[in-house]
Amino acid sequence: MSLLERTVQKIYPQDSEFRELAKKRLDQLALPHWALGDLMDLSVDLAGMTRSVHPVLTNKAIVTMAGDHGVVAEGVSKFPQEVTPQMVYNFVNGGAGINALAKQAGAEVVVVDMGVAADLKDLAEKGKIINKKVGLGTDNIAKGPAMSHAMAIRSLESGIDIAYELGERIDIFGTGDMGIGNTTPSTAIAAVITGRPVKELTGRGTGLDDEQLAHKQHVIEEILERNKPDPKNGVDVLAKIGGFEIGGIAGLIIGAAAQRKPVLVDGFISSAGALLACTIEPFVRDYIICAHRSVEPGHRAMQEKLGCSPLLDLNLRLGEGTGAALAMNLVEAAVAILTEVATFEEAAVAGATT
Amino acid sequence: MSLLERTVQKIYPQDSEFRELAKKRLDQLALPHWALGDLMDLSVDLAGMTRSVHPVLTNKAIVTMAGDHGVVAEGVSKFPQEVTPQMVYNFVNGGAGINALAKQAGAEVVVVDMGVAADLKDLAEKGKIINKKVGLGTDNIAKGPAMSHAMAIRSLESGIDIAYELGERIDIFGTGDMGIGNTTPSTAIAAVITGRPVKELTGRGTGLDDEQLAHKQHVIEEILERNKPDPKNGVDVLAKIGGFEIGGIAGLIIGAAAQRKPVLVDGFISSAGALLACTIEPFVRDYIICAHRSVEPGHRAMQEKLGCSPLLDLNLRLGEGTGAALAMNLVEAAVAILTEVATFEEAAVAGATT
Repeated sequence: MSLLERTVQKIYPQDSEFRELAKKRLDQLALPHWALGDLMDLSVDLAGMTRSVHPVLTNKAIVTMAGDHGVVAEGVSKFPQEVTPQMVYNFVNGGAGINALAKQAGAEVVVVDMGVAADLKDLAEKGKIINKKVGLGTDNIAKGPAMSHAMAIRSLESGIDIAYELGERIDIFGTGDMGIGNTTPSTAIAAVITGRPVKELTGRGTGLDDEQLAHKQHVIEEILERNKPDPKNGVDVLAKIGGFEIGGIAGLIIGAAAQRKPVLVDGFISSAGALLACTIEPFVRDYIICAHRSVEPGHRAMQEKLGCSPLLDLNLRLGEGTGAALAMNLVEAAVAILTEVATFEEAAVAGATT
Repeated sequence: MSLLERTVQKIYPQDSEFRELAKKRLDQLALPHWALGDLMDLSVDLAGMTRSVHPVLTNKAIVTMAGDHGVVAEGVSKFPQEVTPQMVYNFVNGGAGINALAKQAGAEVVVVDMGVAADLKDLAEKGKIINKKVGLGTDNIAKGPAMSHAMAIRSLESGIDIAYELGERIDIFGTGDMGIGNTTPSTAIAAVITGRPVKELTGRGTGLDDEQLAHKQHVIEEILERNKPDPKNGVDVLAKIGGFEIGGIAGLIIGAAAQRKPVLVDGFISSAGALLACTIEPFVRDYIICAHRSVEPGHRAMQEKLGCSPLLDLNLRLGEGTGAALAMNLVEAAVAILTEVATFEEAAVAGATT
């Protein structure tokens, strides 16, 4: 049995007994009923995920997966492909958005080369990044499949490997991405798995104008027409229209769920990974926390399909895991509500009249 | 000249030169243009407030103002009045929601007795709270004015005093409130200053049913009919229908603005204080950050009147400063974006094609 199959078999829904215990405690807190709203719902989820009413989520990591995309040949991005490795160096040097925001949230940044179209061995040898390179960028999905079935499995299992390796010391994961052109495969994945029209889902990525946006929509329609991925088969969708980093993100999410660890899903690209993970094993959903609502118009449809309301809505469209880092503080707050706030009885506060 | 008049004269708009300097830096960061959205807008605001492109907002305080309300005699709250002092003890003992969330955000909690209807001298003498008691709760605003004009000035100046005293070591303030019944005066203030109908603004507070909600709306209409506050005169609105803690919050906001320090305005009650502050001196608005959108239906109208979009929308309705504490992390993130993220040039990353 493959690593993917073995891992998927370990994924169970949230524990209803610990959800109930958490709910019972929260119902008694010295505040108007459920007055901390969505954060109390999150507290219940965290108890259900971790099987504890005292969840420990001290050690946090944002895993930023990088990969390139042959489809950039179609002119779907404003930025040249060399920006992907340049940004990997920027992550390593601590100068990127994710470095600043992960630091603020007390999370470490783990950078993974899933398939950058450049030689990054020097960084891997120095232990600055994790090398899981599946290839030098995917093939151009406007002309054929992104990768072979075996490469899709390898992308997913690389993500699972990382979840297990980090899982020895990390309590909560955030996903992140870097890959010039990767809103195109992500939009294609969203269209296949949500069944919504490409026009409704396609956005401006890093800054396309109207004409470039229309071209991108046309390219995505061609991608779907040519590859015909099976929406019920996450591995098939990944192989035909995915990206190496998107497969890595899906694998990381699956690996987190198998360890009953919460995973904060960042923005548009990460949500494509989450849709793949949930297509492969729907119980994965119970370990996902949607960090934020991106500017990309398709993000709403993806989160509706996931059945997950985002914690933040700040007009972000950067990726890298920045939204996940920002939401880490809210997860920590939800733990604090469950574990640190006194009940009416403990605080000797009178309750509401009925 | 009174302290209030002297303080108001020190309030200037945000500095446009430092706003421009911040914007120029942010435009060059190695990310798609303005890809960190609302947080970048906030970075610009922080530069404009503090007159610095390296704002230092390390020392944070949530100032939780407590006061009682004679209008509880009309049956407008589910909780008995003794909960106000009980919650003050809970704050001091560290068991409340605000204690847990301020700790998570690295902020201290400063508790102020603005007018609790109980003797809290023991806590003040031990230095656990600040004693600024204006009275033992306001008078019943359904029967007449809340307080005298002199008491309204004293409430405001107490808040200013605290802003100056704390200002020696605190870089950023969050507002907070505790006061059984205080959604009623806050809704009345909202109705007067926004001009919107009471029915549209009134909410369930700590948990009223339909009948109780209709009663509360009726009481608020009576309050406005009887007191006829002048919407252009913030001191008059406070004296006639306000609360001691609401005046204290307004004063704190005015005192923060006079020191060019940002102030995170919490929820519904704090926003009533912010409306009073901005009615007294409109330039105050430039130092306000709206922390979150509360469940109370009138909160949207208040924030529209303030011209301020909230950072968070998490279905909170607790008060105490909890929303402000949660948003402190986002302010810190906005500072990190401005001061820690590298530009395209610094990071040697290629820019977008045009």
